[in-house]
Amino acid sequence: MASKKATHQQTKQLNRDLVLKLIFDHETISRAEVARLTKLTRATVSEIVTGLMEEGLVEEIGYGESIGGKAPILLSLVADSRYLIGLNLAKDKFVGAVVNLRGQIKEMLEFPVNERDGVQALQLVYQMLDQLTAKGWKPLVGIGIGTPGLVNTREGVVVNAVNLDWQDLPLAQLLEARYRLPVSILNDSQATAIGEFVYGQDHPADSNLIVITVKHGIGAGILIHGRLFQGDGGGAGEIGHVVVQEDGALCRCGNRGCLETIASAHAVVRRARALAGEYPQSPLAQNPAAGLAEIEAAWRAGDALAQRVMSDAAQYLGGAIAALVGVLNIQKIVLTGDLACFGAPWLEQVRAAAARVSLRRLAQQTTLDFGLLDIQACILGASAFMLLENYDLLFIKTND
Amino acid sequence: MASKKATHQQTKQLNRDLVLKLIFDHETISRAEVARLTKLTRATVSEIVTGLMEEGLVEEIGYGESIGGKAPILLSLVADSRYLIGLNLAKDKFVGAVVNLRGQIKEMLEFPVNERDGVQALQLVYQMLDQLTAKGWKPLVGIGIGTPGLVNTREGVVVNAVNLDWQDLPLAQLLEARYRLPVSILNDSQATAIGEFVYGQDHPADSNLIVITVKHGIGAGILIHGRLFQGDGGGAGEIGHVVVQEDGALCRCGNRGCLETIASAHAVVRRARALAGEYPQSPLAQNPAAGLAEIEAAWRAGDALAQRVMSDAAQYLGGAIAALVGVLNIQKIVLTGDLACFGAPWLEQVRAAAARVSLRRLAQQTTLDFGLLDIQACILGASAFMLLENYDLLFIKTND
Ligand SMILES: [Zn+2]
Ligand SMILES: [Zn+2]
Repeated sequence: MASKKATHQQTKQLNRDLVLKLIFDHETISRAEVARLTKLTRATVSEIVTGLMEEGLVEEIGYGESIGGKAPILLSLVADSRYLIGLNLAKDKFVGAVVNLRGQIKEMLEFPVNERDGVQALQLVYQMLDQLTAKGWKPLVGIGIGTPGLVNTREGVVVNAVNLDWQDLPLAQLLEARYRLPVSILNDSQATAIGEFVYGQDHPADSNLIVITVKHGIGAGILIHGRLFQGDGGGAGEIGHVVVQEDGALCRCGNRGCLETIASAHAVVRRARALAGEYPQSPLAQNPAAGLAEIEAAWRAGDALAQRVMSDAAQYLGGAIAALVGVLNIQKIVLTGDLACFGAPWLEQVRAAAARVSLRRLAQQTTLDFGLLDIQACILGASAFMLLENYDLLFIKTND
Repeated sequence: MASKKATHQQTKQLNRDLVLKLIFDHETISRAEVARLTKLTRATVSEIVTGLMEEGLVEEIGYGESIGGKAPILLSLVADSRYLIGLNLAKDKFVGAVVNLRGQIKEMLEFPVNERDGVQALQLVYQMLDQLTAKGWKPLVGIGIGTPGLVNTREGVVVNAVNLDWQDLPLAQLLEARYRLPVSILNDSQATAIGEFVYGQDHPADSNLIVITVKHGIGAGILIHGRLFQGDGGGAGEIGHVVVQEDGALCRCGNRGCLETIASAHAVVRRARALAGEYPQSPLAQNPAAGLAEIEAAWRAGDALAQRVMSDAAQYLGGAIAALVGVLNIQKIVLTGDLACFGAPWLEQVRAAAARVSLRRLAQQTTLDFGLLDIQACILGASAFMLLENYDLLFIKTND
C-alpha cells in the first residue's frame, strides 16, 4: 500500500504540480483564478508561480479582463521551455518527432520499415533518436514511445511485438542508458488515446474516454478519470482479438474470426480481394493490387463490393463499440486510424450498428467521433504520457 | 478540479483514515507495522491509535511474535463497535440485514415481493428499515442499498428500476430524512461486486476485479484499483443487454438476442420449456413448470435438453467474459448468482468458452471462480461501500 502521508516537502511538490497542471490545462490563467481553483492561498500561489517563472516554465503574457478591481495579469505555459521526443513504431514506418510542452511538433522524421529482424529494428530506433537528439532542441526532458504489441509500461519492457520481432525487450533501460533521458513505453493504441485526450477535442482533465484505433490491427485506449487504464497485464484495450465471427477468417493470433479479421484496414483490403470473384463488375475485381485508396474511391462511387466490405467492417466495429459501452458506460468514443478516410457517412454506419445492439439509453448517451490528430496522436500521446505522469521531469536539473 | 491541497486538519484526518484502513485490512497488526506501512512516525501512529481506541473502534488483543525485542501489542478492529444496515432489493424478495464492521450479519429480514407498484415497493423498504432500526443495534452509522436497475449513486437516485416501478426516485434523500442516517444506493450487481471484493476471496486492497452476477438478469461490477467504476452514467457493467445473437429471442429491453435472453437464470428456464418439444424423452418435457432446480437435477443426470441450454448459457457467458477481458485485461473474474448451483463442471465450460474466443495469453492470465458469498454479497457490498467511501462515518458524532 502506497503511503498517502504528506510530508512538508511532498506537500510543496504536490502544490507546485497542481499549479503547473492548472496552467497547463488553461491557455491563460490569473494567479487569483489559480488560487480559487486550487484553494491555495494567494501568497502560496504567488510563491509557486515565482518559482515556475524562474524555472522558465511560466510567463506573464498580458492582462485579462478586470472584474471590478485591477485587471489581472495572465499567466501562460512557455510552450518551448522544454522539449520531449515522441516515437511511433508503426508497422510500415517509424515516425519520430521533437515536441514542445503544448504538443507542437518542432521537427519530424520518418523511416520506412522494411522486413527487419529485432536487432535491426532496435538499430533503427537508435538511428532516429541519434538524429532527433542531435538537432539542438534544449532542454530535452524525456522520450515517449508508442509501439505495437504488449508493453509492460512500469518496467519499460516490450513484452511482445510480433512485427518488430521483439520479445521481452527492456527498451526503456537500453534507451535511458544510451541517451541519459527518462523513457516511457506504451502500446501504440494506448498512446494514441492519450494524444487524442490531451490534444484532440476538449476533454475535461478528469473525464473518461475510449479511443479505438483501426490500422493494420485494432486496439483501444481507455482513459478513466483522466488516467490511462492498462489492466493487470498491460493489455487493456486489446479488442482486436475478441472473436466476433464463429469460423471466421484465420487471424494472426491463431484464432478464427477475431474483430481484426473483418474490421481492420488490412482485413478490408484482404476481403475486397477475396470477394472480388462475386463482383465481376466491380472496378476492384479488375485490380488485384487494389488497396485502401482504391476501395475508398469505389465505395464513394457506390461500388457494391466496396459497400459490402465497408458495411461489414462497420457492423462488427459497431458491435465492438456496443460491448465497450455496455462494459464501461463511457460516453465519449473516438475512432481513429486508416478507415477515417471513409468519412462521416461510414462513421454513421458504425454508430447505427452500435446503437442497434446497445441499450437505447446507453446508445443515446454515447457520442462517436473521429479523432482529430491522425498519426500524430500516437507521438503526442507518448510524449504527453511521459509529461503528465511525471511533472517532476520539468524541474530544473542541477546537473543538466 | 478537486483541490489536492493538504491543510493540517485534512492531513490529520487523512492519516487517521489511513491507519484505520490498515487496521481494517489486517486481522491484527502492531503499531510498529502500521508505522512501517504508512511511513508515519511511531509517535504519530501511537497518537492516532489512542484516538481510535478512545472512539472504541480499535482494541489491543494480545501480543504478537517478538522479532528480537519486546513482543509487540497487536491491534484489531472492534467488529461490533459500529453497525450498518444493508438492503438487497431483489426481484422476488427484499432482504435486509444489520451488519458489523467485519461484515458479520447480526440480524436478517426477508420480505417477499409480490406484484407491487412503486409506492408499495417504497412502503416495503420503510417497513424493513423501521424493523431493522428498531432492533437496538447501536450505534448505527449508515444504510447501504443495492437495487436492480440504473442508479445515480452520487445523487442517491434510482433512475430506473422497472421491476420496482421506480423512475427518478430520490431514495437516499427520502431515507435520510426518515432515519437521520447517511444512505448510499448502488446497482445490485455493483454492490455484489464490492461484497465479493471486500469479504470474499482475499483481494489486495488496490487490485482490480470483475464480478458477474447471473440472476433474473445479468450484470457486472468492476473494481479498478480497489474502487467501484460506475462509468459516466452509472451503467458500467450492464453487459446483460449487449446483443450476442442476431435475431435471438425478444428481450425485456426491446432488443433481440441480448446476453440475458440466453444466459440468465430466467432464460435457462424459459429455453428449457421452449425447447422441450424437441426432447420428448427429457424429464423436463414432462414437467411444464420445471424450474432451475429441476433443470439442475436433469443436467446432473445427463439429460440432453438440460445439457443443451446450460451449454448455450456457458458459451455466451464465456463470450461475454472474453469481451470483458479483451477490454479491461482484468485477471480476476468472479461469477456469482443463481447458476452457481451447476458447480465446477459447468464453470469449466464457461472458462473453456471464454478461452476459445480470447487471446491465448489473456486467457492464461485470467482466473474465473465462483463467488463466495451468494446473496449476502449484495447486502455486504452495499454496506461496505458506505463504509469504504466514508471512513468519517466512523467518527464519533457529538450529537449522536
Ligand atoms: Zn486474433
Ligand atoms: Zn436486452
